[in-house]
Amino acid sequence: MRYGIAVFPSKKVQDEANSYRKRYDPHYALIPPHITLKEPFEAEENQIENEIIPELKKISSGTSPFKINIHKVSSFTPVTNTIYLKVERTDEIFTLNEKLHEGILPDNKEYSFVPHITIAQKLSDEEYSDVYGTLSMLKFDLEDKVDRFQLLYQLENGAWSVYETFRLGE
Amino acid sequence: MRYGIAVFPSKKVQDEANSYRKRYDPHYALIPPHITLKEPFEAEENQIENEIIPELKKISSGTSPFKINIHKVSSFTPVTNTIYLKVERTDEIFTLNEKLHEGILPDNKEYSFVPHITIAQKLSDEEYSDVYGTLSMLKFDLEDKVDRFQLLYQLENGAWSVYETFRLGE
Repeated sequence: MRYGIAVFPSKKVQDEANSYRKRYDPHYALIPPHITLKEPFEAEENQIENEIIPELKKISSGTSPFKINIHKVSSFTPVTNTIYLKVERTDEIFTLNEKLHEGILPDNKEYSFVPHITIAQKLSDEEYSDVYGTLSMLKFDLEDKVDRFQLLYQLENGAWSVYETFRLGE
Repeated sequence: MRYGIAVFPSKKVQDEANSYRKRYDPHYALIPPHITLKEPFEAEENQIENEIIPELKKISSGTSPFKINIHKVSSFTPVTNTIYLKVERTDEIFTLNEKLHEGILPDNKEYSFVPHITIAQKLSDEEYSDVYGTLSMLKFDLEDKVDRFQLLYQLENGAWSVYETFRLGE
């Protein structure tokens, strides 16, 4: 099965992100707004149960809850036309991301980590210019606390279902 | 915020349910296939953290994982045109449902508990007759293990986001 690890921010941040995703993100219906901590990877269910979940518990209990801030949107152009809420860089989120790619956990990092919440993707170049032109003018003042992450698996229809919640510092 | 409690069955059962939901369930995009254990209720976040989650932990650790079986579809007609995968009645799932409505947990049960996975809803009477006519002929032989339930909250767009996972017997 295909698994991934993500943080779902607070309702307030998710609602804000969804107000854009609804119009601009074709993945709107597949998963709530999230910060991907580990890109999708393949694993067997017994490996998940016997190796990966114990390791994730160790990582979550050894990580204290931390704050994140969002002030503006940014984009992955020219690589893709994805527009996202930029999660300001903090040591805590980078350390957590590192830990999720070490030891027995698959090191499936393809790009360097950019903490973000996608709000628009798969736009045509013209749409992208329009939408980014508008969104890049916006200022946000969102603060949120990350106190958990979730292990998800992907269904055949592309949607993601939560398998387990890991509370930080517990 | 509006919270609810549900079981997400295995990927196999979710994929099976989604093959029907895709066509017949307008809530397809709002939540993966699930068995509702507790209908939506209103609560404050501090009440959730300080009272409800500790109580849910107590209930989950005192409940052993159990099996469920699905053999056929059924419907809530004439109350609503909802069609569902019928989860065979077992003491375990009824006891768990009871516990989630006792003590400090809101007793928000409006109807008697019918364990089910919705696969079609909000159909017109004509659609309902067609779809139920077809689906009611189907035989299923799905067995699944319930070893966790999840506390969810609802976003402004109607979608549900998982807040916490509770493993049975742990």
